[in-house]
Amino acid sequence: MQQQIESIVLPNGLAIVSERMPDTRAAAFCWLLPGGSVYQQPGKAGTSTILADLLFRGAGQRSGRELLGQLSLLGVQNEESITPAHLVLSGVTQARNLVETLPVYADILRRPHLPEEEFDAARSGLEMTLASNEDDPRQKLTLELRRRTYPAPWGIPADGELADLPAIDMEDVRQLAKSSLQPHQAIFSVASSLAMSDLLPTLEKLLGDWQPGEITAPPLPPTTGGYEHLTHESQQTQIGIAYPAADSTHPDYLKAWAIVSILSGGMSSRLFTEVREKRGLCYSVSANLHSLKGAARVICSASSQNERAQETLDVLLIELQRLKLGIAEEELSRCKALAKSSLVMAQDSTSSRAASIARDWYQLGYVRTLQSLKQQIEDLTVPDLLAYLDRWPLANLQILTVGPQPLVNNMAQ
Amino acid sequence: MQQQIESIVLPNGLAIVSERMPDTRAAAFCWLLPGGSVYQQPGKAGTSTILADLLFRGAGQRSGRELLGQLSLLGVQNEESITPAHLVLSGVTQARNLVETLPVYADILRRPHLPEEEFDAARSGLEMTLASNEDDPRQKLTLELRRRTYPAPWGIPADGELADLPAIDMEDVRQLAKSSLQPHQAIFSVASSLAMSDLLPTLEKLLGDWQPGEITAPPLPPTTGGYEHLTHESQQTQIGIAYPAADSTHPDYLKAWAIVSILSGGMSSRLFTEVREKRGLCYSVSANLHSLKGAARVICSASSQNERAQETLDVLLIELQRLKLGIAEEELSRCKALAKSSLVMAQDSTSSRAASIARDWYQLGYVRTLQSLKQQIEDLTVPDLLAYLDRWPLANLQILTVGPQPLVNNMAQ
Repeated sequence: MQQQIESIVLPNGLAIVSERMPDTRAAAFCWLLPGGSVYQQPGKAGTSTILADLLFRGAGQRSGRELLGQLSLLGVQNEESITPAHLVLSGVTQARNLVETLPVYADILRRPHLPEEEFDAARSGLEMTLASNEDDPRQKLTLELRRRTYPAPWGIPADGELADLPAIDMEDVRQLAKSSLQPHQAIFSVASSLAMSDLLPTLEKLLGDWQPGEITAPPLPPTTGGYEHLTHESQQTQIGIAYPAADSTHPDYLKAWAIVSILSGGMSSRLFTEVREKRGLCYSVSANLHSLKGAARVICSASSQNERAQETLDVLLIELQRLKLGIAEEELSRCKALAKSSLVMAQDSTSSRAASIARDWYQLGYVRTLQSLKQQIEDLTVPDLLAYLDRWPLANLQILTVGPQPLVNNMAQ
Repeated sequence: MQQQIESIVLPNGLAIVSERMPDTRAAAFCWLLPGGSVYQQPGKAGTSTILADLLFRGAGQRSGRELLGQLSLLGVQNEESITPAHLVLSGVTQARNLVETLPVYADILRRPHLPEEEFDAARSGLEMTLASNEDDPRQKLTLELRRRTYPAPWGIPADGELADLPAIDMEDVRQLAKSSLQPHQAIFSVASSLAMSDLLPTLEKLLGDWQPGEITAPPLPPTTGGYEHLTHESQQTQIGIAYPAADSTHPDYLKAWAIVSILSGGMSSRLFTEVREKRGLCYSVSANLHSLKGAARVICSASSQNERAQETLDVLLIELQRLKLGIAEEELSRCKALAKSSLVMAQDSTSSRAASIARDWYQLGYVRTLQSLKQQIEDLTVPDLLAYLDRWPLANLQILTVGPQPLVNNMAQ
């Protein structure tokens, strides 16, 4: 499980992180640019997504069609996404084509045309995506719960807001491009059979003279929680609960992660057993640990028939409270076994590794090896987890339901 | 790219197919049992899913809790699914735990408890899943389009039908278990660092005396197409088009696949360019090749704002008709480049390989190597594709829309 991770920071600030995976012919890469949703102007959520779209509509010497054609000929399967902190350009291709891909991305980042005449098409495309999220109650729950549990602008829907779109104009996009498409706080990661030395000369030539800007992320204050209901005519009620946990930069992070695994990892987990198997309250129930840099939440969600939704919420809340009463050794053993098989699988996937090393670099300033993660998970004990639950009591719960009728938060009484 | 594929058929009919991937520590496996949705009694769609659920509620010496606990301790991340032809039990874990996993699955397949007292919980769980599909117009489009383009029982929703659930009882589940949990036409596939010789002694001991039954899949007659609309109050109209193509057992299969890639592979593809980039008609548009054994369909889908839905349907139909007028060499080159990078990626994933070799064995009776696929794709020419389009003209289109208002099929006029 020995990993070969190399990193370098260019004088202009661009961090380059590479994991060498000698046995694969695939190559995956991620560009993390400081142009995520928190950097948009207030009331203009969607600017980042429109920028990401326009970046591929022509750059350097290439028109939009030529640019996309070139990426296809290089076998690049690209994907763009917006997180609170970053505008992310990722892709996978054959390792043999990777070096040739770099000049195309250097053009996209440094010399995008951002054609004004295509702004309307990009915005109306985004409008359609956001509208179809509105039609899906599960999507709606996820987005609206994050909005409530994280403070603005960290909780706003990263892809954008329907209501904000009319206010966005080309000038907003240009401003965001200017502040975010620069090397300060930008990260480029690669997972492939190539060594850093295979990539660095090309990267230095393409990006060494890229001029840095200055950018600061907005603060991330604490939140307090509460209960809200959104009315939606549907056969099922969607239930979401979010509450604070140790984030990925915190020494307690893996303990938070283990608690969530005990709640929701696999078919022996507590939520699966108590909510689904024993009571048949719902078919889909899960808990995840969602971490920003500096704040994290446990996010539980379930969808239940409307008439059993109240009971589902009650049982979920009881399970969360019951954690501190005790954890069986066997629960922790199962959690460790599942973690180890997940780590073994992550090791085979270039795209999973490219995303992980970039995220680690952003959140931690270094890359956690799978070996060290495995060791830290192996070392966890039940008393560790119970002590964590003392330090991070169940508090500031944000509850959200989406369905025909509101429920009652019986824990608040 | 040399692959090490071994296969053996036990005297009782069970096919065992293994791909050795020496560089990975992960192991993935698939059990394909002839208990898919086409084997259910008419009017009892959902029996297969309920059976798959009950299989994990106790088997051999283990109660349900013990069984699930044991799988977790072995690091197994299991997943069950129903296809028209198969009840599929798949999983991934560490290669070092794979041999120990086999007796657990042998119990599940040969000695399941199928506890009657848990039947109601399994059925009501399924009811909730199906109800939440009803709430999602995109899901609804996919399921209802397949129902219309494939003949019954091949087109019925594989997971089940809400309306059928009350008619299903425990006896139906037992009958299906009897006919499907036996080695005749069953396939077990593994992708891991282990060789067949590492697995075979254990498999023979566990399954060598498993008694075969007899089972025959229902016939798969042709269908004719048409247009239907389902009313759903939503902001977007979902549009689906399906029409026959060469299936995976047909010598023309890769040509059908290449046509679909030209339509929809990557951001330079025709649908992306014409529907999304040039006209901004919708954000999500795609075409896929869906293949059963003996019949396949090109399935196009798009979601569009209601007021632009008619134009979207018109443009989609024109693009499908326009294919036979010509294909540029560059389109084929892009398709080949994307195919090659996909093949390189597939090679790293044990779960992708375990699923592929099992499916190949079922559909073809042998395993296509990635090398031979790559060569066949490399050999495709534009005249090949145009000749294919002559042999497989655009006919018997099934069109389905889901949204507030029906559209008009202008191609039919």
